[in-house]
Amino acid sequence: MSARPDTPLLDRVNKPEDLKHLSDAELAQLADELRTETISAVSETGGHLGAGLGVVELTVALHAVFDTPKDKLIWDVSHQCYPHKILTGRRDRIRTLRMKDGLSGFTKRSESVFDPFGAAHSSTSISAALGFSVARDLGGQCEGGLGDAIAVIGDGSISAGMAYEAMNNAGHLGKRLFVILNDNDMSIAPPVGAMSSYLSRLYAGEPFQELKAAAKGAVSLLPEPFREGAKRAKDMLKGMTVGGTLFEALGFSYLGPIDGHDMEQLLPVLRTVQERATGPMLLHVVTQKGKGYGPAEAARDKGHATAKFDVPTGKQQKAPSNAPSYTSVFGQTLTEMAAEDDKIVAVTAAMPDGTGLNLFAERYPSRCFDVAIAEQHGVTFCAGLAAGGMKPFCTMYSTFLQRGYDQVVHDVAIQRLPVRFAIDRAGLVGADGATHAGSFDIAYMANLPGMVVMAAADEAELKHMVATAVAHDEGPIAFRYPRGEGVGVELPERGEVLEIGKGRMIQEGKRVALLSFGTRLEEVRKAAESLSAKGITPTIADARFAKPLDRDMILSLAANHEALITIEEGAVGGFGSHVAQLLAEEGVFDGGLKYRSMVLPDIFIDQASPRDMYEVAAMNAEQIETKVLDTLGIAQIGNKSA
Amino acid sequence: MSARPDTPLLDRVNKPEDLKHLSDAELAQLADELRTETISAVSETGGHLGAGLGVVELTVALHAVFDTPKDKLIWDVSHQCYPHKILTGRRDRIRTLRMKDGLSGFTKRSESVFDPFGAAHSSTSISAALGFSVARDLGGQCEGGLGDAIAVIGDGSISAGMAYEAMNNAGHLGKRLFVILNDNDMSIAPPVGAMSSYLSRLYAGEPFQELKAAAKGAVSLLPEPFREGAKRAKDMLKGMTVGGTLFEALGFSYLGPIDGHDMEQLLPVLRTVQERATGPMLLHVVTQKGKGYGPAEAARDKGHATAKFDVPTGKQQKAPSNAPSYTSVFGQTLTEMAAEDDKIVAVTAAMPDGTGLNLFAERYPSRCFDVAIAEQHGVTFCAGLAAGGMKPFCTMYSTFLQRGYDQVVHDVAIQRLPVRFAIDRAGLVGADGATHAGSFDIAYMANLPGMVVMAAADEAELKHMVATAVAHDEGPIAFRYPRGEGVGVELPERGEVLEIGKGRMIQEGKRVALLSFGTRLEEVRKAAESLSAKGITPTIADARFAKPLDRDMILSLAANHEALITIEEGAVGGFGSHVAQLLAEEGVFDGGLKYRSMVLPDIFIDQASPRDMYEVAAMNAEQIETKVLDTLGIAQIGNKSA
Repeated sequence: MSARPDTPLLDRVNKPEDLKHLSDAELAQLADELRTETISAVSETGGHLGAGLGVVELTVALHAVFDTPKDKLIWDVSHQCYPHKILTGRRDRIRTLRMKDGLSGFTKRSESVFDPFGAAHSSTSISAALGFSVARDLGGQCEGGLGDAIAVIGDGSISAGMAYEAMNNAGHLGKRLFVILNDNDMSIAPPVGAMSSYLSRLYAGEPFQELKAAAKGAVSLLPEPFREGAKRAKDMLKGMTVGGTLFEALGFSYLGPIDGHDMEQLLPVLRTVQERATGPMLLHVVTQKGKGYGPAEAARDKGHATAKFDVPTGKQQKAPSNAPSYTSVFGQTLTEMAAEDDKIVAVTAAMPDGTGLNLFAERYPSRCFDVAIAEQHGVTFCAGLAAGGMKPFCTMYSTFLQRGYDQVVHDVAIQRLPVRFAIDRAGLVGADGATHAGSFDIAYMANLPGMVVMAAADEAELKHMVATAVAHDEGPIAFRYPRGEGVGVELPERGEVLEIGKGRMIQEGKRVALLSFGTRLEEVRKAAESLSAKGITPTIADARFAKPLDRDMILSLAANHEALITIEEGAVGGFGSHVAQLLAEEGVFDGGLKYRSMVLPDIFIDQASPRDMYEVAAMNAEQIETKVLDTLGIAQIGNKSA
Repeated sequence: MSARPDTPLLDRVNKPEDLKHLSDAELAQLADELRTETISAVSETGGHLGAGLGVVELTVALHAVFDTPKDKLIWDVSHQCYPHKILTGRRDRIRTLRMKDGLSGFTKRSESVFDPFGAAHSSTSISAALGFSVARDLGGQCEGGLGDAIAVIGDGSISAGMAYEAMNNAGHLGKRLFVILNDNDMSIAPPVGAMSSYLSRLYAGEPFQELKAAAKGAVSLLPEPFREGAKRAKDMLKGMTVGGTLFEALGFSYLGPIDGHDMEQLLPVLRTVQERATGPMLLHVVTQKGKGYGPAEAARDKGHATAKFDVPTGKQQKAPSNAPSYTSVFGQTLTEMAAEDDKIVAVTAAMPDGTGLNLFAERYPSRCFDVAIAEQHGVTFCAGLAAGGMKPFCTMYSTFLQRGYDQVVHDVAIQRLPVRFAIDRAGLVGADGATHAGSFDIAYMANLPGMVVMAAADEAELKHMVATAVAHDEGPIAFRYPRGEGVGVELPERGEVLEIGKGRMIQEGKRVALLSFGTRLEEVRKAAESLSAKGITPTIADARFAKPLDRDMILSLAANHEALITIEEGAVGGFGSHVAQLLAEEGVFDGGLKYRSMVLPDIFIDQASPRDMYEVAAMNAEQIETKVLDTLGIAQIGNKSA
């Protein structure tokens, strides 16, 4: 652990109110100290570093100028909120970030009144801020009071349709509202899309033009000339007239771009707009992700997410890996198969690295599409590609595919188009917590007519499922796999095309059948070993398919066992529910069957290690064993669950 | 029935290819005949009239200039596709529109090669068109071949985030692609939002400006001067330079606005862009919804949707109603309750009439928000309102709420914000068919931790549920109700606040318990009457809540009956699955229980009357009766289902 930094001014700040007594020069110094403290904290915890470093000055300036928590400061995505947490009474716990029982890595309403609206998915902040603005005008009441609403949103996030919808509505309503566009030309990966190029042009030296009289209201909002005088003001006008049009078309007053690391620009501009704005105002602030920490600035991802690291060198302490990650097995397999099938194309929504498609993109740049943060479009774009005869792999995290759910139903499933859904981060995900859990996809995909739904039990199974998806041209097909490392099984040279709707028997046993869907299979095996030692050898099967179900296998398991227990990394309504429906309709329950369905519990589970989260979910080996014993009515000595 | 119109030219057109041999003057005449035929057909079938009438000339011109079906013509929403269907080989069936076994009221891939991408929900066309364009460039193959892709999208639909996402991506990729903006300043209701005002300004007489050299490529695409000469070309330039900026910022060449009812403008402009465009091109066409039919032009909704009507007078044949619609009971009740609770606010996504909020909006204009076609924003806006102390009613059709699913999970459920979801059009909906069915909401809402999910069994129950939702401030709550008329029960003066998680007993019986969730209760009652006549009097219960379940009631029903059958207007994964999970976990199946769960079948059901659709779903009284007899193992004489 590196030595804690010296932060004399920050040490005197316990809450944002304390900033009101500081001079501008002191605020600038405070920002420097806040940056050091953020680096120090994340070096001990790991987490999102680059985004926070980019908004250190902005964080100080916003809290200094606005009146939080009465004014509602809403961080979009909110992985940039660590400096904000330090300034708002949570410095004492900042070194518990993303740990079990520690601070969340995101803003969270239950954590602090200074987090009026939690986030983790992108592009929600303007909608929420508009809600607060309207509530204020209608006499709403909430903790901390209701003042102004300020959304801070990145240039990647503002490219999502949802942010556009919110601006369209905010511009129409015309209420006082602040949107700070934090433009660092970098979301997780460099942002793509026409909007991104547009923003780049705003500060790329377009020729100076005269102010348009039509630039509604913005002129009167210009701050007093800055200390450096007319030059900066002129620069700002230039940006406004060249670049504001798009935002002005949406009913916003546009101001900027200004330098988000220069407190001498930030403070007077924020003070002026805070004093004078009457309607929706977009302030364009240019920042650098990873600013002020060399190793982050130098990194390709600008220090987006990091393990614990050594501050002087930036060297990260990465745990050695025992097996390739599911994500990399997916990326590798798809890339291999693409060599033999030129109809394979892949789509990601701003996550080329996170989804393992970076490899595919390198090899087949013309066949890989990063559509930006745009899951709705991404899914239907895949539907169009499929209708045009391609084999699109729509590659998204389970939690983000929720953004394209209607498109899955309306554009893919109803039309039976062969879109392949590669659903990463299925199940519980660890440090990112409840907002990133992939809990619902089995349920929301498996009840769509014509959809095939698979889950990989290990990395070799994932390879088979990619091959199966390539081969399946009759309609849509989905396969899910978790975050993290595989279990270390040998990877076959080539994936094998699985028979649709057929599971596999893992082990023949007696009395109880454990029917697993997905990667809990490993825990099921462990539970079975322990049970065998106690004289009960369970049958184990891997369902492979939640849809279509392997009816023969399941009915046979039910017929030949006293008990049947399903297990899946998903909420009720998914695999187990489809099995129960089959058993009910076939009259299996009529004569009695000890049927149980182990699903994620009916709570949102806070961040911890995946193993600890599955402990909360009662889905680890020991708990599976207990479930078996309870179901069979076998008393246990020292049963923890009793 | 009115006499069929005289259509000599149209009678000679069997497919779009036939248009290639017609002169421009003949094409104009053909458009007139097509309009008459469209009016005549819809007068016999009812359906969407205004939208089709607005694009008659555009339909003829597009098919005349482009090479369908090789060129992919994609109608957004596609309720404007009747003239297109008439021109593309389906005239002989046009008078079966929206009927059982007839033509769909929307484009449908399975219906014709001229419908390359079906629709019904809005704003999907640009994504799909981009998919086709990319597939073409990558050597994709499909029925009819792969040429250009043309999306025709309304000004209401283009305001949705999804369309913006697609343009952002299309502008980035730079591929040849045509977007025809069909601007009639009218979606179902007049469109709202800043984008809409922006479009209006484009043809509202802004001062003429010089062409910007920067107007990428568009200049070279200008058509030859029209017959009327320079004036029109100049008008077009004017629009382009003033208005194109927003679209140009997104990487499109912009051309327009042009008069969409003037074939002398449409044909040469389309020919020119078809010949010369190299990248994405937005052609702005101004049309009038309902054009050319007096009664539609005069109607407030421009003849958006109509019953069968008399052509000369426009008088519609509306069936007399026996009871108020669920929608109107909802709107009425909410408006009444809003008088006593000034925290009640309501949000609709471009459906004030369809959701019954028109009444509320009239009475409380400052508390009703039409956010435009923007379900993602709409849900999170509600979350913000709730966080600000208001009581927002997020009022959407079940099928459209799918668009805001991630926001329901991430912004509402995880934060436990008390947003009230009023879910209209739950279950099967009739003439709008599979794309509008509300089949999945029980499943996708009820497995969210902390969500309360209710379904109204009749219109009085709906009134109680509105009152219950107003009172429930601890977290999110949803209630669903179907399209169409209530069952005719007496409406209470005031809604009663229901106890959360408590069902109600309807009738005590023996052997079998029928546990209904939602409006199938009426059919259950009928089935029970018929069964009683046969000596079996079932117990009937109305669950009211899918979440939390009334555990005591359900376990007691299970304990005291030989069989328990649930029924709901939803897909597997919903109410019945939650009941099965409870029964399994409580060990009720261990000793045997004839448990069945009647859910929507695993198919997308085509349009028909709701009753006929429920017949397909096997959910009418007679089929419930059969289910009971089958479950109890009672042989039936002349059993139709055997």
